[in-house]
Amino acid sequence: MSSKSLDYENLNENVKKCQYAVRGELYLRASELQKEGKKIIFTNVGNPHALGQKPLTFPRQVVALCQAPFLLDDPNVGLVFPADAIARAKHYLSMTSGGLGAYSDSRGLPGIRKEVAEFIERRDGYPSDPELIFLTGGASIGVMQILNTIIRGAHDGILVPVPQYPLYSATISLLGGSFVPYYLEETANWGLDIGNLRQSVTQARSQGITISVLNVALAYLVYLCICDKVRAMVIINPGNPTGQCLSEANLKKDTITPYIEILFNAHPFMLLQWRRYTRFSISLSPNVSGQIFMGLMVSPPKPGDISYERYVRESKGILESLRRRARIMTDGFNSCRNVVCNFTEGAMYSFPQIRLPPKAIEAAKSAGKVADVFYCLKLLEATGISTVPGSGFGQKEGVFHLRTTILPAEEDMPAIMASFNKFNDEFMEQYETRGLFKDVKRNGETSTCCLHKLASPEKQLASPPSLIPTFM
Amino acid sequence: MSSKSLDYENLNENVKKCQYAVRGELYLRASELQKEGKKIIFTNVGNPHALGQKPLTFPRQVVALCQAPFLLDDPNVGLVFPADAIARAKHYLSMTSGGLGAYSDSRGLPGIRKEVAEFIERRDGYPSDPELIFLTGGASIGVMQILNTIIRGAHDGILVPVPQYPLYSATISLLGGSFVPYYLEETANWGLDIGNLRQSVTQARSQGITISVLNVALAYLVYLCICDKVRAMVIINPGNPTGQCLSEANLKKDTITPYIEILFNAHPFMLLQWRRYTRFSISLSPNVSGQIFMGLMVSPPKPGDISYERYVRESKGILESLRRRARIMTDGFNSCRNVVCNFTEGAMYSFPQIRLPPKAIEAAKSAGKVADVFYCLKLLEATGISTVPGSGFGQKEGVFHLRTTILPAEEDMPAIMASFNKFNDEFMEQYETRGLFKDVKRNGETSTCCLHKLASPEKQLASPPSLIPTFM
Repeated sequence: MSSKSLDYENLNENVKKCQYAVRGELYLRASELQKEGKKIIFTNVGNPHALGQKPLTFPRQVVALCQAPFLLDDPNVGLVFPADAIARAKHYLSMTSGGLGAYSDSRGLPGIRKEVAEFIERRDGYPSDPELIFLTGGASIGVMQILNTIIRGAHDGILVPVPQYPLYSATISLLGGSFVPYYLEETANWGLDIGNLRQSVTQARSQGITISVLNVALAYLVYLCICDKVRAMVIINPGNPTGQCLSEANLKKDTITPYIEILFNAHPFMLLQWRRYTRFSISLSPNVSGQIFMGLMVSPPKPGDISYERYVRESKGILESLRRRARIMTDGFNSCRNVVCNFTEGAMYSFPQIRLPPKAIEAAKSAGKVADVFYCLKLLEATGISTVPGSGFGQKEGVFHLRTTILPAEEDMPAIMASFNKFNDEFMEQYETRGLFKDVKRNGETSTCCLHKLASPEKQLASPPSLIPTFM
Repeated sequence: MSSKSLDYENLNENVKKCQYAVRGELYLRASELQKEGKKIIFTNVGNPHALGQKPLTFPRQVVALCQAPFLLDDPNVGLVFPADAIARAKHYLSMTSGGLGAYSDSRGLPGIRKEVAEFIERRDGYPSDPELIFLTGGASIGVMQILNTIIRGAHDGILVPVPQYPLYSATISLLGGSFVPYYLEETANWGLDIGNLRQSVTQARSQGITISVLNVALAYLVYLCICDKVRAMVIINPGNPTGQCLSEANLKKDTITPYIEILFNAHPFMLLQWRRYTRFSISLSPNVSGQIFMGLMVSPPKPGDISYERYVRESKGILESLRRRARIMTDGFNSCRNVVCNFTEGAMYSFPQIRLPPKAIEAAKSAGKVADVFYCLKLLEATGISTVPGSGFGQKEGVFHLRTTILPAEEDMPAIMASFNKFNDEFMEQYETRGLFKDVKRNGETSTCCLHKLASPEKQLASPPSLIPTFM
């Protein structure tokens, strides 16, 4: 092989850099430990089914029938599938030509886009046109398509709140746009800091950059604001990795014109509603079974349907358990030494701040690691809890976090938090005190004297800010 | 709305340009005609199920069970699913943690990558390591990931045979690489023209461009060649839009080191085998039901299994019918006036050359259309046959094609070809003769005289070239 061979060294540097934090060093080490037989609690990715969440029965029944349409002609089908699932499968199959093995229209099946538009109208009272709905195979693809469409060059800047999901910075860089970060305010429940924001915008504009705003998250609702000085604004809600939600009042501010709406659900899928676009197709066809799942999410069984009660029981059960788990986790973190954490209002993430003692930061430096990576690796080795260091999402200088999910089974949660607490105590014990104590000779005897203690962290964080500022 | 609003005019020009030929003007017109009640034969996309191809029963049974895993606990499941499908569903579900609703490893489920590696070893006798297999959700994503990895800047050129699937030129442009085209030789069954190729390479190198070779297609086998002067070479086989296959001898040439193998099948999915890469993940997780379909394609039912005979009957039935349809279509085109066509050896495409008379080219110009678009639109209006103009894939100056698929139902094929023939005859009659005739006065009477006739086209094309040249 010659020196010009295609190998890791001469790959595109952006690709090498763009290794996601959620699948980075921590994840690889966790996979190794798992192979060695260690029990790993994977909370690095929002992957509820992998952590034991049961699928909703009705949508799975419908999609199974769509996958195997010959079952609909089987005289025994009624023995294993309820009549409303059979009817719904026929309904979706009648929308396709060729079933799940065929490409659909690039924007998605017209019948499902109609169901989505009806859902938006029902929920928001805002008129929605199925011809302007785009279905994409996953949120990442949708975000990339939007960014690809918006970004024309380095003069197009995307204003992104930090901490952010690294997909955004990586995609903006790949597309040759300008990444314009601003920090969310953790003590204001990850709300906007207007001063910081204005500073970022002013600085970018002084460089001739037209601003678009991308408020990143893995979420269920997006509005895009158009005004004279801002080319595009996208708010995705709730936040990732921060897990905060915008209030209804925030979302209804007159200054924000409903423009693009993106809707996610637990089965990763996304809807876009473009209001003024000429119709054009970027890709061939989104996955058809994913489209049908989306149809089922926006039009679940209705009262009176055979599957209604079961569906409500299952979906309510999941949501209520998630809320309880969010509470256990937030309270658990806040009871830990040098850890503070906002409550998880939505999405699936908890993003506690870990106040690392200077000695821990030094030890990390000696080990050639970023301090939060160092902490998360030690947490993984000690407890099997696989998290994502906050530096993967961006954070202020000298401030450290980790991202975990609230998804481990509810019955396991107290033990996980106890295990975290124990590790954290030992970690803090090791690094907080060492060096802060000094051997002192007194009356001929050497004793250890505590020079100072770190100030106890504020455990109570402020309530969410009440409005989203307008960008003038 | 201000002038800075986000609308079609101020979108990224590359995105506007990158509207795929396969979903462009012809497709939109066909969709309109369909809405008006005209019967449309959609042959613009290789979409077999949309044109009536029945799904293979066994894979669909297995994936349906994986979608609805609670069926495996249903005492009646054996009444609607055969025992080997049930066993196989359990086999695949045991590979996942969380089933089809959970993300898998970014590279795909280890168990399925193992099945793929075993398939490659069995078929090629070439050792294959599951750790180096990547599964991606569709061929386009795989191609984009490879190009993204290879291309570092404008000095990285990708040598692409033309006609090409427009995904490649669009992606190379998006990634900031250099598109280095060379023409395939139609009279040599779309084989390589070494002279043309050398010229393209020499010219690119004189501009300081390092060449990578991308031999585009929708296909089942890729080898990547590394040698001193060529950074990477990818051969995808069979071709798209051209439908030609490389011979076994071609693929085994010593000069081509097996390096990357890409495997497609009718359910769009792709396997990559990277030989020397450090492992790293670009995206979160390929679609898990797609992965299971891939597993089922590389390890179908074996002799003795309950579903074996049915599977063989169904899959042989599809392949044999495709071969017969390819023959009917190629012979049909070659029997048409001014149409010549190579035989479809693989993939699903037929790419006949239409020798358009000068008058037709002029008429197209007057109508503001590219000549092949003009022809294809008239074909669509007259017959409902929706094709893709060859200019969407790139072709030599003054040479015109259309791409169609061989996928309409076999029983419909003779009527479709008769309808094409009739349209083509009328079209040629209208444009070939007008203006080539002249009114002549003879003995006081005016009569029309044929000045000349276009030479009858060669109907026989040459056989495929016997080797792939090495790039020195």
